[in-house]
Amino acid sequence: MNQRWSLSALAIGIALSAPAQAFEGMWMPSQMPQLASELRSAGFKGDPAQLSDLTAAPLNAVVRVGGGTGSFVSDQGLLLTNHHVAYGVIQYNSKPDNNLIDNGYIAADRSAELPANPDYRVLVTVAFDKVTDEVLKEARGKSGRDYFDAVDAASKRLVSECESQPGYRCSVADMYYGTDFYRIKQLELRDIRLVYAPPRAIGNYGDEIDNFMWPRHTGDFTLLRAYVGKDGQPADYSADNVPYQPPAHLQMAKNGPREGDFAMLAGYPGVTYRHRTAAEFDNQVNHVLPQRVQVFDQLIDIIEQQGKADADARTRYASQLQSLKNNSKRAAGELLGLQRSQAVAVRAADERGMLAQTDADDRAAIEQLSTLLAEQTALRDREFLLNVFGSQSQLMRSALMLQRLQVESQKPDAQRESGYQQRDWNNIEAFLKQVQRRYSPQVEKALLAALLGRYQQLPENQRVAEFDQAFGRTPAQLASALDKLYATTTLDQEAQRLSRFAAAREGQPMQPDPLIDLAARLIPAQLSLEQQRKTWEGEDLRLRPAYMHALFDWRKSQGRALYPDANRTLRISYGTLESLQARDAVTYAPVTTVAGIVEKNTNQVPFDAPKRLLDAIAKGDFGDTADPVLQTQTVNFLTNLDTTGGNSGSPVLNANGELIGLNFDSNWEAVSASWMFDPRYKRAVHVDMRYLRWLLAKVYPAPHLLQEMQVD
Amino acid sequence: MNQRWSLSALAIGIALSAPAQAFEGMWMPSQMPQLASELRSAGFKGDPAQLSDLTAAPLNAVVRVGGGTGSFVSDQGLLLTNHHVAYGVIQYNSKPDNNLIDNGYIAADRSAELPANPDYRVLVTVAFDKVTDEVLKEARGKSGRDYFDAVDAASKRLVSECESQPGYRCSVADMYYGTDFYRIKQLELRDIRLVYAPPRAIGNYGDEIDNFMWPRHTGDFTLLRAYVGKDGQPADYSADNVPYQPPAHLQMAKNGPREGDFAMLAGYPGVTYRHRTAAEFDNQVNHVLPQRVQVFDQLIDIIEQQGKADADARTRYASQLQSLKNNSKRAAGELLGLQRSQAVAVRAADERGMLAQTDADDRAAIEQLSTLLAEQTALRDREFLLNVFGSQSQLMRSALMLQRLQVESQKPDAQRESGYQQRDWNNIEAFLKQVQRRYSPQVEKALLAALLGRYQQLPENQRVAEFDQAFGRTPAQLASALDKLYATTTLDQEAQRLSRFAAAREGQPMQPDPLIDLAARLIPAQLSLEQQRKTWEGEDLRLRPAYMHALFDWRKSQGRALYPDANRTLRISYGTLESLQARDAVTYAPVTTVAGIVEKNTNQVPFDAPKRLLDAIAKGDFGDTADPVLQTQTVNFLTNLDTTGGNSGSPVLNANGELIGLNFDSNWEAVSASWMFDPRYKRAVHVDMRYLRWLLAKVYPAPHLLQEMQVD
Repeated sequence: MNQRWSLSALAIGIALSAPAQAFEGMWMPSQMPQLASELRSAGFKGDPAQLSDLTAAPLNAVVRVGGGTGSFVSDQGLLLTNHHVAYGVIQYNSKPDNNLIDNGYIAADRSAELPANPDYRVLVTVAFDKVTDEVLKEARGKSGRDYFDAVDAASKRLVSECESQPGYRCSVADMYYGTDFYRIKQLELRDIRLVYAPPRAIGNYGDEIDNFMWPRHTGDFTLLRAYVGKDGQPADYSADNVPYQPPAHLQMAKNGPREGDFAMLAGYPGVTYRHRTAAEFDNQVNHVLPQRVQVFDQLIDIIEQQGKADADARTRYASQLQSLKNNSKRAAGELLGLQRSQAVAVRAADERGMLAQTDADDRAAIEQLSTLLAEQTALRDREFLLNVFGSQSQLMRSALMLQRLQVESQKPDAQRESGYQQRDWNNIEAFLKQVQRRYSPQVEKALLAALLGRYQQLPENQRVAEFDQAFGRTPAQLASALDKLYATTTLDQEAQRLSRFAAAREGQPMQPDPLIDLAARLIPAQLSLEQQRKTWEGEDLRLRPAYMHALFDWRKSQGRALYPDANRTLRISYGTLESLQARDAVTYAPVTTVAGIVEKNTNQVPFDAPKRLLDAIAKGDFGDTADPVLQTQTVNFLTNLDTTGGNSGSPVLNANGELIGLNFDSNWEAVSASWMFDPRYKRAVHVDMRYLRWLLAKVYPAPHLLQEMQVD
Repeated sequence: MNQRWSLSALAIGIALSAPAQAFEGMWMPSQMPQLASELRSAGFKGDPAQLSDLTAAPLNAVVRVGGGTGSFVSDQGLLLTNHHVAYGVIQYNSKPDNNLIDNGYIAADRSAELPANPDYRVLVTVAFDKVTDEVLKEARGKSGRDYFDAVDAASKRLVSECESQPGYRCSVADMYYGTDFYRIKQLELRDIRLVYAPPRAIGNYGDEIDNFMWPRHTGDFTLLRAYVGKDGQPADYSADNVPYQPPAHLQMAKNGPREGDFAMLAGYPGVTYRHRTAAEFDNQVNHVLPQRVQVFDQLIDIIEQQGKADADARTRYASQLQSLKNNSKRAAGELLGLQRSQAVAVRAADERGMLAQTDADDRAAIEQLSTLLAEQTALRDREFLLNVFGSQSQLMRSALMLQRLQVESQKPDAQRESGYQQRDWNNIEAFLKQVQRRYSPQVEKALLAALLGRYQQLPENQRVAEFDQAFGRTPAQLASALDKLYATTTLDQEAQRLSRFAAAREGQPMQPDPLIDLAARLIPAQLSLEQQRKTWEGEDLRLRPAYMHALFDWRKSQGRALYPDANRTLRISYGTLESLQARDAVTYAPVTTVAGIVEKNTNQVPFDAPKRLLDAIAKGDFGDTADPVLQTQTVNFLTNLDTTGGNSGSPVLNANGELIGLNFDSNWEAVSASWMFDPRYKRAVHVDMRYLRWLLAKVYPAPHLLQEMQVD
């Protein structure tokens, strides 16, 4: 791994530059035994079989927390996760006179542990069962929308049966794109409390500037505690509740890792696309990402131009502008990375090899899949533009949302489209209220003119009659339609939106308004497009398993196992601490030290290291948490582990299964890893547990917690 | 060298963090023999005695070119220097239909070599004689202004005698701050021609973005040729001239260097302050630099605020704004570096050690020097503000310049202050003309209000009666004075400035104008401040040698030699190729490769690598210029050599005295090296001669030049 990028290889052709397997893989625990020899040669000293059961130690110590991952670190329900995963909990407990984000928090004892926001959840996996036959039984022989509905209905039934036992949350996970289905049963802990949070200037040191960056110097960790009722069952917060006693917890290591050491990580990675077809890779690199950059940059330009003349609009669109910039930057970074890895050519060559040894039946299904994907690709521009059309407007989006709510609210609540059920009303109302702070008619018209102007240039087969009727076929008709709509709508007044919301949620007709009336004409088109999407989804579920079978066999013939693409289920990655040659002549060491905190410190947010921390660094009193070779305190470390969004808070274990780190980010060069794992660039960024221990021992002391974690 | 910054040393105190001597030193050639053992232990394989004579090989191959350094690389006057040193020559030869900056240039043969702008000069040192006694003879026993005048008169006489021989330019150099004086005699070559320049996108790849940066990927070189008359004497351009046959030239190495290899460099470093007193270090770090940042940032803020409302002013002040930003950034970088190196404490401890072993006579003179410096320090704020007051205005500066010109023009030309002689008239006229493009009354008033507002807050002893009378003592009086001046002046019209210029240069009275009249009242104060500065300078020249004697003895007792601070005379530095740990966990290798050109390429200025270069890199046909270990083409390399501004174009030699590189920049971390050499951070950036050879061999071919340099 980490070879210098060979230019002669570039010159000779892509065959040589296909990335090595290296430590690619977000493995299902059940796959670990078959990786035994790879694990051992990487340095693992435990029994791979012990990693195969999600419901046994150590994996049952790894839980879902908020939007990320966490792990139990004591037998009294003490939970370790990221500062950014627990951010809402810390914020929820802030008071005007005590901002816990800024100040951090140390609960002196259990009575001082602060209850989280009531919707904060910790999920402990207690069962993981293969349910492929049950899910597919009714679907077999069907196709399209029928296939989709059959899978959907079976999944919902399985979830509902499982959730009949109170205190549990269940889901059905689709592995290998429709090939296998698993039912996951999770204990749902509802009383979570804040135990220890470092100040923001430690937990989020560097913030956006250092985001995706290495070298890193961030103490992105927080300790929570899960509580249950006196009967040991999940319960809402109550002063009488008692600490949850997890089935297992992780033991913090006494020593820290160094370059080359084995490391492994368990967590809930979100979504990857590694096993998508060569055509999908081509579409992503040569169409989707460039289009995303181009359209987002156009919208950015429009907002900036409008903002130059209008300070008020500048303020109102600051947040949308920032978000567009982040999205554009991320897409550009993903594009650059995939080009650098020659992802399209590498995946195409790989797929050609696979197809050459695939049997006729699977090939026939793969042909059908290709046709399906081509059908979607032919309409991709429309899909993209109409999606952005909805998401980047305020008044237009309000009108569409209200109109759809009115349609859905005429059905029984359970049959309403997700997002329009009674449980969603609060969110809808909140959206309708915030419009006031984020809307300017000039900017919205300019954004819609740009997006619909692009739409007007689409070929006939991508056009939708309702949109053409509403906005015309020429830029002049479009401009005139938008001018008329925005000159006469009253939806820019909050009271007008909220009174229509009151009607729509009851399924009642709304008072007329030009935008509401327009939405009424557009919603049927929207519904018909949704119907088509579900048909496609059903066909995809039906056909893609053939592709996955072929890929599985192909990998087997290469002597490689196949992990399922990430789907928010528990996975294991393993690898080593590895340096990064990010650019020519630049080498990043895999361990950072407190010297970097001092170097980066500017006394200005986000590099405003607390004086207490700077003093402690200057004092140099690191004790047994110092690295024996570097002779100073380490802060973060870097591994080649396979991760993606959702892995935030994943525990990192050493060769003996002891806790050495806490995953919190990856490097910018790896932003394309959701599609392709390139061992030269894919790294994950972790908090070194020695830094946590030092902070708790010497800087913001919490000796009782070190004692509880048995590292005092 | 290059040790990890030890935090425990930080904690223990500064004693441990005093920088090691390492490869600090810009040595006079005459000092090389005494460094023989150090040179050999660094890897030098030649005879150090051979480096002691500026007028013998190899040093007589090193010449002054334009504002930098160059070296002869063939016996036919072929000269190697930086692209940025020869920039004016390239630009001078550009035509509307052939921009040589963009396109580069290759002279197919001698007849195609293009004459430089007529004022472009190459200076070959032919004599270097100690003239201390002659310079100081009349000064001894004097003090203050008399001492200054005696040194000045003696120096001018020595120069004038020397220049009586046509074709030579002479100067007197002050070494060790008034301790020693040398007369330098240089052959002045006036017919210089452009032979080979790479395109801008190679010669200035990365431009401002990569300036001061490492890793670097810039081919910052150009080949010129010096011509003389048929009689071998310097001559203006003529088609009949013949190539100058230099007394010596450098031989290009066949192999390139790698990390740890010996390297040495000869050139004309500009100004350093390494041997200034501890009090001057303290003043620089704790006052001068912070003040510079603060005042420049205030001016930046004013221009940006004014520019927000006034697009025209934004354009007019773009260049001044950029220059202020560069100056502020540079001052901030220097400050940061000196703080990181604990320069004040290190220098103070060093000086305490020195004074403890200095004899009574020198100590008495050093005491007087301290008193003198304290006197200057007491007035430093006024000096700084009045200096910026003149330089950051347009109309005010025009008025002061015109008034001073009128005063000086009443004297014989030779006695006029430098800058106001007949030879300076073109420059003055050009300045008076460009005002039109760079002036806005609102911005100028705002800038002057800020600077004079600061001046008004100075204590009584720093105030000047003439300024107080002109601008009042309160902000209100100042604002009213400025409003009145700028409401009524006519100097904002070019014709008004130029008609007064015509009068002033003849020493005639000028037509009245509020700003001209104000300048007439301020000039006497300006002259009196100048008189005081020359008195200080005389005292400094008289007293500082005692400090230098003491320092010389102190260094000797430490077993170290003492080099003079840089003063634009020929110096030698030696050291090795060394990596740079610029920040925690970041290591920069000392050699870059063409892979970095591809990585940085965006197809946008300044990272718009030519297609021909990119194709050649992709082709990978590097031949014998490829590095045998890296197996690819190198571009730039990094050494720990001691350099500063003026070293641009210095040849870098290997242990055998062969040419391996061309100095062109230093790293951002070393911007504080003008005051203190910190071996952890001081590096110099060079073009690898293998890159030049590859470009000439394979990319933009010039086989005849490779043949002439005997590396074909």
